[in-house]
Amino acid sequence: MRFDIFTLFPEMFRGPLDESIIKRAREAGLVEIHLHNIRDYATDKHKMTDDTPYGGGGGMVMKAEPIFRAVEAVLGLPEVRADAPLETPPCPIILLTPQGRPFTQAVAQELAQHERVALICGRYEGFDERVRRYLATDELTIGPYVLSGGELPAMVVVDAVTRLLPGALGDPTGAQTDSYAMGLLEHPHYTRPAEFRGWGIPDVLTSGHHARVAEWRRQEALLRTLVRRPELLTPETLTDDDRRLLALLKERLETVLAEQ
Amino acid sequence: MRFDIFTLFPEMFRGPLDESIIKRAREAGLVEIHLHNIRDYATDKHKMTDDTPYGGGGGMVMKAEPIFRAVEAVLGLPEVRADAPLETPPCPIILLTPQGRPFTQAVAQELAQHERVALICGRYEGFDERVRRYLATDELTIGPYVLSGGELPAMVVVDAVTRLLPGALGDPTGAQTDSYAMGLLEHPHYTRPAEFRGWGIPDVLTSGHHARVAEWRRQEALLRTLVRRPELLTPETLTDDDRRLLALLKERLETVLAEQ
Repeated sequence: MRFDIFTLFPEMFRGPLDESIIKRAREAGLVEIHLHNIRDYATDKHKMTDDTPYGGGGGMVMKAEPIFRAVEAVLGLPEVRADAPLETPPCPIILLTPQGRPFTQAVAQELAQHERVALICGRYEGFDERVRRYLATDELTIGPYVLSGGELPAMVVVDAVTRLLPGALGDPTGAQTDSYAMGLLEHPHYTRPAEFRGWGIPDVLTSGHHARVAEWRRQEALLRTLVRRPELLTPETLTDDDRRLLALLKERLETVLAEQ
Repeated sequence: MRFDIFTLFPEMFRGPLDESIIKRAREAGLVEIHLHNIRDYATDKHKMTDDTPYGGGGGMVMKAEPIFRAVEAVLGLPEVRADAPLETPPCPIILLTPQGRPFTQAVAQELAQHERVALICGRYEGFDERVRRYLATDELTIGPYVLSGGELPAMVVVDAVTRLLPGALGDPTGAQTDSYAMGLLEHPHYTRPAEFRGWGIPDVLTSGHHARVAEWRRQEALLRTLVRRPELLTPETLTDDDRRLLALLKERLETVLAEQ
């Protein structure tokens, strides 16, 4: 899989793409990441990539021309124009902006099916609207908060998608038991020492009884999800055992509350 | 404001924290970012920071000891123990995990009020539960997707919080007109050239009529939000004019649909 990332700050990507799982996936040839500086595609002598907004107001807007030229050059497209619109984009061309559709694990899975994905990182007040309307095929946001630009979101997308590529994780089962991947939050984990500064671990974990360990983990995951992210408890994520446990809990609560 | 970031991959932070708004905020003395390698606080000769989970199963779990020691050393805390629990933490001690409460613009604003914030980045299958229960004061997640670790989330938190610090943005009004900050998605932006490859800009933007420009922008923001993120349209975000426009739209839709 190949990512083409368009940014005014390619240096920002140095550290994050050179470590850990992404580093290994790049070394194994599973993923290629190409960084393109939008400024290199500005045509005027000052290499301007932003300008003041029509209609006035504060802030600067990223100009359409350098972005169109960069994407066309890298993806090998003819000039996109009002009289020659981009009808069959060669791959998803995604803007990272606060206005996009929410990036989720399902979107990561969808992107992991593509051989190539182009990511365009916004800065300042945003893009000239014509980038959004006539060049981009999609627009993603990684969460409900304001960031300085689309660079960190692009890294988040690359990381989430790369770890879904077959062979990217050392442990082949790793990706499936992660949070969200199994629909519930994860159960608690404990590792050595069993006794740490006076705090122990649940006895069941050293019982050697695999079925009981599995049952304890599922119950803990269920309870943690019920407390923190109840919206994740949908008919699709719940097993029959889960439903029995939740029904039992509900009964107990009714008893407890009736006694008050 | 000071961030202390605890991680196994401090090199990941090189690029992202050395550019743009964070770079300027650091140079202006508004924010200090200290990176701490958890591995430096491992006590055994192999500097082990993770181990297999009790109860079996795949994956590795981050050990409690090196994290407790790192946070205690950096924050100047006495040893936290079952018989000497952490009762008054000197600052928020936040885990970045997929199980946390969602990070939002409101949480960023809350964190920006603190003089110091500690961020602990998870890796592998997660933390030994005792880190979560007895050391951390909060747990945040940046979105519903699985990442390789807490490093990118920590960068997201640092970026979102830093740009809220007074003086961090060149334009003092910048932070308020951003998406989310004003409750609606942003209106479209256009910059030079007015005619780009056959696509023009809305006439109102060159009319010189400020009130009409403001009205057009608000309407566009409202419509974009209605289409893409309707849940943001709450009583708090809507003005009387907004409500009139939405009521008018509703009427028109009723007419159109009645004619079908």
